[in-house]
Amino acid sequence: MPDFAGPLDRLIQEFKRLPGIGQKSAQRLAFHVLRTPREDAERFARTLLEVKDNLGICSLCNNIAEGEFCVYCRDTSRDQAVICVVEEPHNILPIETTRTFNGMYHVLHGSLSPLRGIGPEKLKIKGLIERIGSGSVEELILATNPNVEGEATAVYISRLIKPLGVRVTRIAMGIPVGSDMEYADEVTMSKSLENRREV
Amino acid sequence: MPDFAGPLDRLIQEFKRLPGIGQKSAQRLAFHVLRTPREDAERFARTLLEVKDNLGICSLCNNIAEGEFCVYCRDTSRDQAVICVVEEPHNILPIETTRTFNGMYHVLHGSLSPLRGIGPEKLKIKGLIERIGSGSVEELILATNPNVEGEATAVYISRLIKPLGVRVTRIAMGIPVGSDMEYADEVTMSKSLENRREV
Repeated sequence: MPDFAGPLDRLIQEFKRLPGIGQKSAQRLAFHVLRTPREDAERFARTLLEVKDNLGICSLCNNIAEGEFCVYCRDTSRDQAVICVVEEPHNILPIETTRTFNGMYHVLHGSLSPLRGIGPEKLKIKGLIERIGSGSVEELILATNPNVEGEATAVYISRLIKPLGVRVTRIAMGIPVGSDMEYADEVTMSKSLENRREV
Repeated sequence: MPDFAGPLDRLIQEFKRLPGIGQKSAQRLAFHVLRTPREDAERFARTLLEVKDNLGICSLCNNIAEGEFCVYCRDTSRDQAVICVVEEPHNILPIETTRTFNGMYHVLHGSLSPLRGIGPEKLKIKGLIERIGSGSVEELILATNPNVEGEATAVYISRLIKPLGVRVTRIAMGIPVGSDMEYADEVTMSKSLENRREV
């Protein structure tokens, strides 16, 4: 016998499918929906489907877009000469929130992983080369993740693009600002020493 | 300028409305929905509305119910002589998961709180008295929350019901099993001493 009435139990199951939501959180969320007005649940339900129906991939940078181009590619005030390469669309936000980057983006939709059978042909690299071929790009910033796959992807793209005469840079790895050196792992600490700067 | 495409941003806002979901979690959940197949989002959306449309209040115990009676009131194998009184429908689950209680429930939908203007007339107490009036109830277990409002509610109901000749009990308060006495607050520790038992 289920512990909850059918629809409530099914909503708990739906919430549990989401990442990081366990049984207790799912229950709390479902009971919350139960208490909210119907129009709130309606708007939530509608928004869930809108995301599936009205969003696509930007035909320039592969970011998520409503229409042909994403918000960044549509923004003509941004610097067309710099392209920041990221693995996934959600990797753009941490860069945007710094408010220090005003260039363009390019989303690869993955990273090289021979173990999982993901080779260069599965990433959106072709479009990147076309963008660079247009001639207006001066710098490519590789902002793939600081792990084995991200590093391999950065090395691969840099070897591919450097011969085209474009400056290729990689975001710095080192100890995080505000943290304690005591807690830095060896790899991070050695990167931090390796990338030391003249003061 | 929004950082995300319109529908994605709106879905993030919807997730943020849920209790305990902040900006970062909402983003993660919205991006998850973006990656799942459309039929999954559709089922989620449908379930959200089902909860609003197909659920009501059990006409016997006020628990959430699909139809006239809730799963517990429909279950004829349960002991009709014992009623466990709780504040909210979600308070039933922690009791059910113990698998040691096989009686009935009664949901008050709140607790007495003079400060917030919640008096006895706002709680579902009338139905409880009617149920006891039927004569088959032998014990009433007060499982309202172990806080000021829950305690006041328990005292109020016990004064109301005891004259009717029904045994009224209150769930035990004391130090939680498996915890360390060192971390028990004074009120809990004094309750634990007060309610000590012969061994």
